[in-house]
Amino acid sequence: MDSDFGIPRELSDHQKQRSLYQPELPPCLQGTAVRVEFGDATTVVDPTDAHTISRYFPRTYGQPLAHFLRETAKVHDAQIIAEHPAIRVGVLFSGRQSPGGHNVIWGLHSALQIHNPNNVLLGFLGGTEGLFAQKTLEITDDILSTYKNQGGYDLLGRTKDQIRTTEQVSAALATCKILKLDGLVIIGGVTSNTDAAQLAETFAEAKCQTKVVGVPVTLNGDLKNQFVETDVGFDTTCKVNSQLISNVCTDALSAEKYYYFIRLMGRRASHVSLECTLQSHPNMVILGEEVTASKLTLFDLTKQICDAVQARAERDKYHGVVLLPEGLIESIPEVYALLQEIHGLHRQGVSVDNISSQLSPWASALFEFLPPFIKKQLLLHPESDDSAQLSQIETEKLLAYLVEMEMNKRLKEGAYKGKKFNAICHFFGYQARGSLPSKFDCDYAYVLGHICYHILAVGLNGYMATVTNLKSPVNKWRCGAAPFTAMMTVKRYSRGPSALSIGKPAIHPATVDLRGKAYELLRQNATRFLMEDIYRNPGPLQFDGPGADAKAVSLCVEDQDYMGRIKELQEYLNKVRSIVKPGCPQDVLKAALSAMASVTDILSVMSMPSNSSRTLL
Amino acid sequence: MDSDFGIPRELSDHQKQRSLYQPELPPCLQGTAVRVEFGDATTVVDPTDAHTISRYFPRTYGQPLAHFLRETAKVHDAQIIAEHPAIRVGVLFSGRQSPGGHNVIWGLHSALQIHNPNNVLLGFLGGTEGLFAQKTLEITDDILSTYKNQGGYDLLGRTKDQIRTTEQVSAALATCKILKLDGLVIIGGVTSNTDAAQLAETFAEAKCQTKVVGVPVTLNGDLKNQFVETDVGFDTTCKVNSQLISNVCTDALSAEKYYYFIRLMGRRASHVSLECTLQSHPNMVILGEEVTASKLTLFDLTKQICDAVQARAERDKYHGVVLLPEGLIESIPEVYALLQEIHGLHRQGVSVDNISSQLSPWASALFEFLPPFIKKQLLLHPESDDSAQLSQIETEKLLAYLVEMEMNKRLKEGAYKGKKFNAICHFFGYQARGSLPSKFDCDYAYVLGHICYHILAVGLNGYMATVTNLKSPVNKWRCGAAPFTAMMTVKRYSRGPSALSIGKPAIHPATVDLRGKAYELLRQNATRFLMEDIYRNPGPLQFDGPGADAKAVSLCVEDQDYMGRIKELQEYLNKVRSIVKPGCPQDVLKAALSAMASVTDILSVMSMPSNSSRTLL
Repeated sequence: MDSDFGIPRELSDHQKQRSLYQPELPPCLQGTAVRVEFGDATTVVDPTDAHTISRYFPRTYGQPLAHFLRETAKVHDAQIIAEHPAIRVGVLFSGRQSPGGHNVIWGLHSALQIHNPNNVLLGFLGGTEGLFAQKTLEITDDILSTYKNQGGYDLLGRTKDQIRTTEQVSAALATCKILKLDGLVIIGGVTSNTDAAQLAETFAEAKCQTKVVGVPVTLNGDLKNQFVETDVGFDTTCKVNSQLISNVCTDALSAEKYYYFIRLMGRRASHVSLECTLQSHPNMVILGEEVTASKLTLFDLTKQICDAVQARAERDKYHGVVLLPEGLIESIPEVYALLQEIHGLHRQGVSVDNISSQLSPWASALFEFLPPFIKKQLLLHPESDDSAQLSQIETEKLLAYLVEMEMNKRLKEGAYKGKKFNAICHFFGYQARGSLPSKFDCDYAYVLGHICYHILAVGLNGYMATVTNLKSPVNKWRCGAAPFTAMMTVKRYSRGPSALSIGKPAIHPATVDLRGKAYELLRQNATRFLMEDIYRNPGPLQFDGPGADAKAVSLCVEDQDYMGRIKELQEYLNKVRSIVKPGCPQDVLKAALSAMASVTDILSVMSMPSNSSRTLL
Repeated sequence: MDSDFGIPRELSDHQKQRSLYQPELPPCLQGTAVRVEFGDATTVVDPTDAHTISRYFPRTYGQPLAHFLRETAKVHDAQIIAEHPAIRVGVLFSGRQSPGGHNVIWGLHSALQIHNPNNVLLGFLGGTEGLFAQKTLEITDDILSTYKNQGGYDLLGRTKDQIRTTEQVSAALATCKILKLDGLVIIGGVTSNTDAAQLAETFAEAKCQTKVVGVPVTLNGDLKNQFVETDVGFDTTCKVNSQLISNVCTDALSAEKYYYFIRLMGRRASHVSLECTLQSHPNMVILGEEVTASKLTLFDLTKQICDAVQARAERDKYHGVVLLPEGLIESIPEVYALLQEIHGLHRQGVSVDNISSQLSPWASALFEFLPPFIKKQLLLHPESDDSAQLSQIETEKLLAYLVEMEMNKRLKEGAYKGKKFNAICHFFGYQARGSLPSKFDCDYAYVLGHICYHILAVGLNGYMATVTNLKSPVNKWRCGAAPFTAMMTVKRYSRGPSALSIGKPAIHPATVDLRGKAYELLRQNATRFLMEDIYRNPGPLQFDGPGADAKAVSLCVEDQDYMGRIKELQEYLNKVRSIVKPGCPQDVLKAALSAMASVTDILSVMSMPSNSSRTLL
């Protein structure tokens, strides 16, 4: 099958038209010379982690942020990169495919070609396995032509996608040396970028010339931190899913007899469910983060939904739409504990048929209470990271089943007097993943590809390409690079699948911030969504005309642009320095001292380790 | 909930933009006066049915076709409708919602307003139940404003939607009399239009002034005959599903480890599956009609798919996409027979728990062979028309399960040497139904709405509004009306759910024509689709720019325009008459006689009852 990679293919008229779309570049990346400005050395969000992280990553910890500016920008100590010797770069897809991935490669290739026609870009076939086995395809304009602005990862393919074991890291190192790569660009999500960080450190230690760069591409949208506002693919995924959810809402309202329970992708974080809710206004959404925060049990959730169904029935409404993320099942405390017991027994080699008889009494009681289809799914072998096989567990059917039982009981007891409750269940997973990427994802990915080149041209190792101020038009986007290590945290305790990572620094998935603006927007509207059927249909993904430039609601309401603020702070500090020069009046100096003393006091208190659990964004 | 119908609602920007779209009218419907030309009296496609149909429908059988022409058209005996006294019209949605339904109402309302501002349009709330209970909403421009070009049926809602029993027909008659309706427009598929035909006959018999008009709106696309080329909603449904199928194809090709089995809507006919295949080029499709024609068993189907999987594995391909319609399960002969036994036992009042023990030995053997989830689904109560609950039966999972078992067996026996077979199953049903309608469906529905008005203005009863030459641009569309009875057939034998209708004339669903051009196109490409992964992504539904004017592939390749040809024939006959007038040379008369004798001979032979089973299109 390898021989099929990169071959030109037949495109539909619409695909052809899309392949001709040329994403814009922000002003700082236009032209052939780019200025780079380095910020201060980076720290990490939780000061107590700093020591551990610097110990694991002695060579790549604490590197400064980099900002890319246009050649004409008036910044006194920014360096102009005008020399562009030929370089050799490798690139690979790692992890679940996400719409827009191809454009990272296109952007990178385009930047390489602009700056030196002798630059070489090698794509690794089949993800990390291609990296280990040195299976490459040289990327050319011809090869790219039918993949520009197209979905999927089929230009190069992907596989298991892990670079973690000593053998894997050594194989990657060997490949980079043999192929004489100056840079290796890894396109992926939290896990792949954590692996990339490890690779960067190992390469630095081994004095390998290859610099490692990461690109935030994951449809879950959970690679999110001070430097990364959103991921390539999230926008498309939410738009495609929102369209389908809205269609189902319209359907519910037309037939007026069904409750639709829709499970969406999203494992440890419910960003997709939240964003789709803000786009489509379904009646209810249950976020894993809410369930975790309030420790809601299956019983609580069932009751919550039943009460909603009952309240709606009192208004003569017998239809509705309920969203939930696939990760929800692991957020429910008692189910989570049951899963842990089951996985434990799997590890001990207990056969599937015998597991139920070896459960603890209370886990057994819960297990026996569940309907057969869920029992079977809970008994599935866990995935390699010890999490449950979430795409296979039909949580939406479980909830629909429990709600139906409870509503029938209420009906029988006379507590509920409405019509019979009917549910239809859906899982919207793989439908969105292969979509043509939205204009936003096309642009974002393409720009990130360009930035990768500049990171390598400057010679940085262990960085992720970043674009901030994304809610503004492309010409206002800020391009930069942040060290992987600055995005890391260390988990000291953990319930659940990520237990393996305790004590080891990693880029962890960001969960939905229950104190954030996007969630606040949901809470403000939750009652109206629930009772008033103010369904909203964002319509199918558009590439032309109205709607084509729409951006994710959560991206627009969140108050991000951390990179912009970091720069703004620097400008303030510079201004203070230029105003309060030796020779300035005593009063000015005194005022400056007093103001600075108070600022530093406040900041010291706020940065104390005990506060480290506060939210990141 | 009734009070919620027709209320203005919050639209997304994209919905708002769509609500401003104004569909075009073909030239014949522009202006305030329209010419109507009547064709010859109609017959039916199978001459042996004519007697039965005329007996059931003495007052509405044999009515002529009507063609609507522009006022200036030079047709000698076409009548100009210039007077437009005020009329009162009722309209209702009947049956499953289909994208575009709202535009029929808009088109009708717009035509009513243009021709006499005193015209009144009443919408029945909740489908046929609203008709029986006289629950109406007066349609105004204000009310329509947020429903123009929008999906769903939520302006008026729908319910069970049947007008068949004596009580139901009497209630409908009473309503039409009380509300003094001049016309009743029924928006729906084959069943609803058959009900409409019955209503028209009953109204005529009862000397009720209300004329009944039908509109072909069903996303299954199975209301198809000489006069009806496609149905409102089919285009949108196929486009939305094709997008999702293409996304899954891209996904399959990127990950290269899964076979996706996708079940699509489509009960007795597989039009949606065929059209989606022509749009997306998945590896395989199994049409119910093929299975019926070749009497393929579950074993045959499993073998067919396994052989395909094996052939692909030999080319190192371990992924693929297989489509099937929800009606497939009833096309498989032995499963069908099993379902008939189960439904028979249901009718005898046997409880679900006891059914399996009362099956015949061979049915029991098949039943026991099936996996538990399918057993449970097959045991569900049949629907009111005696068909299985197709949306609940996961045929895609059954096939995936059987293929996996067989592949594992082949692997064990050494007959297959590839990687383990992995399947992921999807049902794409309700996601498409509530979509914003495509431009084509918006236009088609709007024009049909206008035609309904003209049918009523001419005073016709028992007609369906028709538009032909749909594959051409709107300005080439031909508008007309055909009597319901001309679309009827009589089933003399029937395996299956439609057994109830034996001997009674009805508009039956048209199945995929295995000798038609669309199917031929599929067959020509089947091997390439299977082996070469020439996946094609038509992209998301577009309303602007490229792709917005794309039409269904099957609509474009089929050689339809029956109405156009009927008119052309008439022109030939008229020409013969005008050339061969008394006084013409003997030679000319002789040549005409000889040619006409041969034409009539050929046609007589072709029209003999024994040939009646040939295809319609």
